[in-house]
Amino acid sequence: MPVQQFNFPTRVRFGEEAIQELGQALKDQGVKRPLIVTDKALAQLEIIERIVGIANKAGAKPKVFSNFQGNPVESQVSEGVREFKGHDSDSIILVGGGAALDMGKAIALMAHHPGKLFDYEDEKPGARPVDQPIPFMVAIPTTAGTGSEIGRSTVISDDKTHAKKIMFSPRLLPPLVIADPELTYGLPPHVTAATGLDALTHCLEAYLAKGWHPICDGIALEGVKLIAKHLEQAVIQPKHKEARRHMLVASMMGGAAFQKGLGVNHSCAHALSTVYDMHHGLANGMMLDACMAFNHEAVPEKFAVLATAVGIREADDRKAAQGFLTWLRGFRTALGLPSGLKKVDIKITDQLLDVAFGDVCHGSNPRPVTRDDFRRLYEAAL
Amino acid sequence: MPVQQFNFPTRVRFGEEAIQELGQALKDQGVKRPLIVTDKALAQLEIIERIVGIANKAGAKPKVFSNFQGNPVESQVSEGVREFKGHDSDSIILVGGGAALDMGKAIALMAHHPGKLFDYEDEKPGARPVDQPIPFMVAIPTTAGTGSEIGRSTVISDDKTHAKKIMFSPRLLPPLVIADPELTYGLPPHVTAATGLDALTHCLEAYLAKGWHPICDGIALEGVKLIAKHLEQAVIQPKHKEARRHMLVASMMGGAAFQKGLGVNHSCAHALSTVYDMHHGLANGMMLDACMAFNHEAVPEKFAVLATAVGIREADDRKAAQGFLTWLRGFRTALGLPSGLKKVDIKITDQLLDVAFGDVCHGSNPRPVTRDDFRRLYEAAL
Repeated sequence: MPVQQFNFPTRVRFGEEAIQELGQALKDQGVKRPLIVTDKALAQLEIIERIVGIANKAGAKPKVFSNFQGNPVESQVSEGVREFKGHDSDSIILVGGGAALDMGKAIALMAHHPGKLFDYEDEKPGARPVDQPIPFMVAIPTTAGTGSEIGRSTVISDDKTHAKKIMFSPRLLPPLVIADPELTYGLPPHVTAATGLDALTHCLEAYLAKGWHPICDGIALEGVKLIAKHLEQAVIQPKHKEARRHMLVASMMGGAAFQKGLGVNHSCAHALSTVYDMHHGLANGMMLDACMAFNHEAVPEKFAVLATAVGIREADDRKAAQGFLTWLRGFRTALGLPSGLKKVDIKITDQLLDVAFGDVCHGSNPRPVTRDDFRRLYEAAL
Repeated sequence: MPVQQFNFPTRVRFGEEAIQELGQALKDQGVKRPLIVTDKALAQLEIIERIVGIANKAGAKPKVFSNFQGNPVESQVSEGVREFKGHDSDSIILVGGGAALDMGKAIALMAHHPGKLFDYEDEKPGARPVDQPIPFMVAIPTTAGTGSEIGRSTVISDDKTHAKKIMFSPRLLPPLVIADPELTYGLPPHVTAATGLDALTHCLEAYLAKGWHPICDGIALEGVKLIAKHLEQAVIQPKHKEARRHMLVASMMGGAAFQKGLGVNHSCAHALSTVYDMHHGLANGMMLDACMAFNHEAVPEKFAVLATAVGIREADDRKAAQGFLTWLRGFRTALGLPSGLKKVDIKITDQLLDVAFGDVCHGSNPRPVTRDDFRRLYEAAL
């Protein structure tokens, strides 16, 4: 299938070999000194060499910044900004999963804005406005999970507290995304599974979120459908073209859909990442059964709709909704995730509960969540 | 429910009373001399007076251009451009259904572009590029059908041949849409029905269209769901808040979804408008049964999915797909459309078949369409 273009929420060039278009894109934009932002692990792989080669061939002088890994923190952003300025960069190429994409956006934000990164924290009283120039960004996802490549925010952790902070501006949406499914072929099965479950969580929580946004509902439900159909295949056969292609688009659909809001599952996961530095996708995946069962009590009719999305044809809505929860357990199990939080040495502490309860995401959950609810949810996921 | 914002494919302020935000929007944009483009019939209604009042209050000097009706033609665009220049306008407020929105976009295109409108026809060999400034546009839909307010094209007819020509550019997407469902409360039942069926046709044909665009598929299916649930109510109770709100968002979803493509139904409808000046939505609605039955033979599995969207829960896919066609006939009948083309004095002529067969839309139809197929489809709809 030839590379094709999606036009919302931003310009997305999608397809196998789309990466070849990077050189022309840099030329069209007239940029010469891109900073390539990617994480430590990716920097070792052939893809970065390839991107450097493409940029060179287009007459550009790229520089790689990759001194970060896992959940990126503020001081790493500052280092990236120094690299950007030191290289006299005019643009940023963001290559990777959520960490690299968020890091790239944060560097883009701070390239020409005064003060400190967290001065721009979303909805913080007295936050500074995002009103200075932002360098041209091309986002190149290498996982199918985060959807950050088409998102308008960046999530960076505090160095000391590890608390995740969200910086938001429509201007943080990269004006160009190159989405090439072949770049995900090399992901090991457990990463494919964890990132895929991240995408699933985005779609599920967006659909269930309070508020009214039928466009997001439609995108989320179709995303659920695609993930239900293709994720296991992508885990089992990493080079399965159709599976990878559908997972990559589904992850972007999750990212688009959660404009509507997220929920309790993300609050649980954010706390697990903050306190235990757990991978975001894995944390989301491990909380899914507990959090979806919790939400099911509040909006069973929505779970009946989710059931149809995963292929359950059941005339009785109550049974359909229950069927979805059963399906979800089986799906998660088939993906080979750890069977519970205990297996990965998680303990339920006051700090964990505080961070989860203090997280903003559950504000749009369809069912209100108390601190005690969080304890029960973690217990159910142990 | 408060006014809320959707962010794709463009900035949409959605909700009852959203129209009140127009003044601030003009101020924010710093525009002073908007041309209000609306059709003859609408120009008589209170809404235009109200918009003029809001603009005046915001310190602007608007002028109304409304010398057109039905399917707009090129010479009317030229007249609008003269009005734009004569008033020394700096912006355009597009108010109405598809005709007014397309007219407003065409005037915006020709405000600063050289040559003639059809020099910019999409995909015409040697077409001129859309590369000059385009004045600021605010689109305010008053029907729930066209979706043109969030579209990137404008359809204008040739004065002599009445052939519809499409001008396309991402820059024709209005940067701001004010979508206020209350503006549709005054639509008479037959207009609500015809425009609503236009939206349904957009969603159905986008979903069925050849090509791969899961984002559009998801939006289209959710649009079908909303229209199935709310259109009849909006026809019966014109001031039904929930019904009008859902129909307005569904029409925008149809407009977004058909980025993927349309199909044979639109080719039939375009010919009916070209040859008989039939209302576009009515023409689409009257062709639906025949065209969907025709497509069902090619992609029955997609009709099974459409069946779930309209609420049919049937485990057997074949029966579900058939169930959709039955549902569609009932739905159309309940909306009170004329029972067949004969009732509205349509005759199947060579000209009608030529225009339909020459129309570009059926290029993306899931089943190839011959000139003889068009004859059979019109016969089925007689």
